[in-house]
Amino acid sequence: MSVEPTVASRLIFRGRAIALRVDEVRLPSGRAASREIVEHPGAAAVVPLTDDDHVVMVRQPRKALERELLEIPAGTLEPGEAPLVCAHRELAEETGLRADEMTPLLTFAPSPGILTEEITIFVARGLRADPGAAPEAEEEGLRVERVPLSAVPALINAGDIRDAKSLIGLLLLRWR
Amino acid sequence: MSVEPTVASRLIFRGRAIALRVDEVRLPSGRAASREIVEHPGAAAVVPLTDDDHVVMVRQPRKALERELLEIPAGTLEPGEAPLVCAHRELAEETGLRADEMTPLLTFAPSPGILTEEITIFVARGLRADPGAAPEAEEEGLRVERVPLSAVPALINAGDIRDAKSLIGLLLLRWR
Repeated sequence: MSVEPTVASRLIFRGRAIALRVDEVRLPSGRAASREIVEHPGAAAVVPLTDDDHVVMVRQPRKALERELLEIPAGTLEPGEAPLVCAHRELAEETGLRADEMTPLLTFAPSPGILTEEITIFVARGLRADPGAAPEAEEEGLRVERVPLSAVPALINAGDIRDAKSLIGLLLLRWR
Repeated sequence: MSVEPTVASRLIFRGRAIALRVDEVRLPSGRAASREIVEHPGAAAVVPLTDDDHVVMVRQPRKALERELLEIPAGTLEPGEAPLVCAHRELAEETGLRADEMTPLLTFAPSPGILTEEITIFVARGLRADPGAAPEAEEEGLRVERVPLSAVPALINAGDIRDAKSLIGLLLLRWR
């Protein structure tokens, strides 16, 4: 059931990563309103936990913010791809690691007012290096960093870890 | 300093809430790539904590997800508006409450791969009803709910609380 009935929908743009549409909707009051909606296929993210209590993270350039962020590995779902499969693939591509265990943590919406994207976060354990993986890292300017779990609070307070998926994954891991 | 030098930039759409541009950038490898970037002015969000350990939340329709979500009060910065001012305004408009204390918790990026938005989360204490506020609620289909802090973990596990700002605000509050 549609939460706000659609009166009209107009596709503005269809790109490589996202599409943009504008929906005209009817509010509970009967008044019309427009909703600018960014369509995204969804994503998977991974908190890779080593046996010696480190998180394997990726420092990467983020054009939208014009700065580098320290994030957990993540990536967009390919067409028809399950989040679990995507999680294993992105972990290998970005860090060169395989995981024996991949446990779902939760699924969240980064920005539900404008964005259809939902991200499923997993915790990966039983990590081992796979020499055949990690083809993307150098090309895209990614740098892998092993972060001690004990250093995470200071990195969050300093604003160095500041993206939603990394914050939620790391905070929830600590909570549970 | 630009993290990925811009070779060309094209504005696709400028709407009410967001704009969309496509940047052509140069990667560290020298190869060209395109970045689809959604521009957003930023936002403020508030965890309103009552003296008897409840969080005042808002249940609202989210067209992008075609479902209702239970979220903390939040809204977009007006031009030139400071996050603190926005936080007080949105709290009043969505819940009808004023806060004696509004303490910044952190600033985060909901989706740094595509979205320029950053959200500053505050904790509001010393809450009192303002009969003159809350003009928006009925028009937009918002319903205010007082949630016991002790019920938050179950609501997160059930996926009822699933947006980034609410998860980060509530998890960080518990962490600190």
